[in-house]
Amino acid sequence: MSASTLDPNRTITELKELRALTGDADGAQRVAWSDTWVRARGWLRAKLEELPVVIETDEAGNLWATLPGASEQALLIGGHIDSVPNGGWLDGCLNTLAGLEILRRLAATGTPAVTVRLVDWADEEGARFGHSLLGSSAFSGSLKPEDLYGLRDRSGTPMPEVLATHGIHPQHMLRAQSRQANAAAYIELHIEQGPVLESLGLPLGVVIGTFGVERHRITWRGQAAHAGSTPMDRRKDALAGAAKLALSIRDIAREVGDGAVCTSGSIVCKPGIVTSVVETAEQLLDQRHIDGTKLGRMLAMAKEASLRFATEEQIQVEWERIWRIDPIPFQPELIELAEAAVVETCGTSHRLPSGPLHDAAEVARAGIPTVMLFVQSLRGISHNKIEDTLEQHLAASIEAFDRLADATISWIQRR
Amino acid sequence: MSASTLDPNRTITELKELRALTGDADGAQRVAWSDTWVRARGWLRAKLEELPVVIETDEAGNLWATLPGASEQALLIGGHIDSVPNGGWLDGCLNTLAGLEILRRLAATGTPAVTVRLVDWADEEGARFGHSLLGSSAFSGSLKPEDLYGLRDRSGTPMPEVLATHGIHPQHMLRAQSRQANAAAYIELHIEQGPVLESLGLPLGVVIGTFGVERHRITWRGQAAHAGSTPMDRRKDALAGAAKLALSIRDIAREVGDGAVCTSGSIVCKPGIVTSVVETAEQLLDQRHIDGTKLGRMLAMAKEASLRFATEEQIQVEWERIWRIDPIPFQPELIELAEAAVVETCGTSHRLPSGPLHDAAEVARAGIPTVMLFVQSLRGISHNKIEDTLEQHLAASIEAFDRLADATISWIQRR
Repeated sequence: MSASTLDPNRTITELKELRALTGDADGAQRVAWSDTWVRARGWLRAKLEELPVVIETDEAGNLWATLPGASEQALLIGGHIDSVPNGGWLDGCLNTLAGLEILRRLAATGTPAVTVRLVDWADEEGARFGHSLLGSSAFSGSLKPEDLYGLRDRSGTPMPEVLATHGIHPQHMLRAQSRQANAAAYIELHIEQGPVLESLGLPLGVVIGTFGVERHRITWRGQAAHAGSTPMDRRKDALAGAAKLALSIRDIAREVGDGAVCTSGSIVCKPGIVTSVVETAEQLLDQRHIDGTKLGRMLAMAKEASLRFATEEQIQVEWERIWRIDPIPFQPELIELAEAAVVETCGTSHRLPSGPLHDAAEVARAGIPTVMLFVQSLRGISHNKIEDTLEQHLAASIEAFDRLADATISWIQRR
Repeated sequence: MSASTLDPNRTITELKELRALTGDADGAQRVAWSDTWVRARGWLRAKLEELPVVIETDEAGNLWATLPGASEQALLIGGHIDSVPNGGWLDGCLNTLAGLEILRRLAATGTPAVTVRLVDWADEEGARFGHSLLGSSAFSGSLKPEDLYGLRDRSGTPMPEVLATHGIHPQHMLRAQSRQANAAAYIELHIEQGPVLESLGLPLGVVIGTFGVERHRITWRGQAAHAGSTPMDRRKDALAGAAKLALSIRDIAREVGDGAVCTSGSIVCKPGIVTSVVETAEQLLDQRHIDGTKLGRMLAMAKEASLRFATEEQIQVEWERIWRIDPIPFQPELIELAEAAVVETCGTSHRLPSGPLHDAAEVARAGIPTVMLFVQSLRGISHNKIEDTLEQHLAASIEAFDRLADATISWIQRR
């Protein structure tokens, strides 16, 4: 195989090499800012240094490898080499290493028509300090550096202290926005981390955007009462409200449809003992939709249902928003190009939204035309050592991603 | 008012005296084995010493005051002067002080036809070591002394060590069973600690027995999955099973009826985070009925429903029994006598089971004919400083209790 040809198997070999270097029996251990993460980046940098690229780290810790093209207009290819603790062997690094392979293929063919830049985002997972999409949010400008000062890891070490040992200072991180200059398009490949493509029997899909998310804490207040001496019709059972809502949000998701998801991840009961009717039930609710209007409708329906349940059960209900984000749609023309690349590679494509957020969402928020490809995840499992994807699907994903890179370069030229 | 007349207002005055002596701003503090409890007992003993009674403490710490009668056959009147921490001013001591007033009335009238014994049970509440009905279970013989060796209070002090400072030794406690000799009947007055009589607008009720109880821990196992990337129809949500059962047990209680109660006091979700479908939900279930067959039916119905829900949700369910006790019915003839006493006192009576257990249940288990009276609790609240009962209802309860004592003495003579 000549150097000017894409070699997906080389990428698969490199993924295994990285796993051996930075994983253990419990999975990947490339938690951002750890020694293992530094080792992973050093390994990546060594591979990049074999190419005619300019390697830089920005003020937010993102690693950039720039292959200059005939035009300063640039195609950005992104990924993240960091992982959660005990993570999988593909999440984030498949993107980075597929991008590396594309750089290799382009560099071997001469000067590309536009500049091509691979970016390895810093701390996508937020595993140590709870702030995900760190580097990409600095790049997009959505980062609030003041939020970082209060963050500590489990051992109590403040985030700024750890960042400083990597030469990063919160007050300078937003300077990474300067990297937006000449960025004409952004593409990213990622494992799906969900079961949709596997259930459809498809290796690849095109991501149309990331879900809007509404997260709430719902507190139900009834009255504690003796489980033995309180007749059923005299109870004000806070759990009854939470139980009804936990079931009702599923009907709401089905009614609104188009990939809507609603999850009640926890109910905490107080006093929480076997001999008492529940006085207070604290419920967590996560609702997601790719369509902002429909997301708003789901939230309104859930609130309305909760009020109805509160009346039925003679209890109180209170909603508190934990977090929200609007849906972030990807660029329609790039979605078309991505679909063509997938169809050419494996015959059939499927469009789907992404439930989890990705660095691509931050890039899209910055107004840079963006699209992502998903490759099938076996059993839909991620953030776990058993995360896996068939090697033939990995190879197909790298091929389709390379085709998308070429098509996007042409698209940038045409603009 | 002559000494030979019952004086319910004296009892109410004594209840207030006891409250002033052994309570504080947070409520009653007569926790068994505490100095305050010892002070309460000393105060009671001083009042008993004014009467022609024999005062003894048995091997389980129960305090007995015996008024000898023409017959050795004895009527037992019981109560408990111990309280929970921050308890109410009536729970347990109303019984004891009403019994004291009956002893006074009987003693002033000459030698009663049968022997009358007031018993102040030791450690009814189990507030310090978690073992309730301590003294009465030693009396009935249901106590397992070996169970006490492992019990410690919050500060780590072993129960046997504390009991020893009161001259009580687990290995000798069952000797209290000898007090069953000649016990021909047992009567007890107690605040309802529930809302039934208040909701019916009745001051007094007759207790037909104590509920049988079935307590289980139910574990639902589904699959953790990302709240964003897992479509609704691909989920195995453990919480859905628990929520369905929490609602379904209420229908089961209504269907079985006759005072049936079912309570889900807690659901604990794992991982319990906003971004994950619930993998494991641990649910507590308490079911009670006065009829053992119906209790068994409620349990079978709940198990059947849980299996149906597990199938519907494609999750697993597992039941583990925490505790059970059979219903303990009171004596039918004594129930009739109690009803007559209540009707004579305030015109209307109501029969109801007791959800909470009482010392009377232990006495009934020992085969001694037993009955209880309940007096209305305001708002059904107990084990709290706001526990209260209207004084006119307290007075009526003491009168009815005295009538019941007289009727029971005659009943013992007739046997």
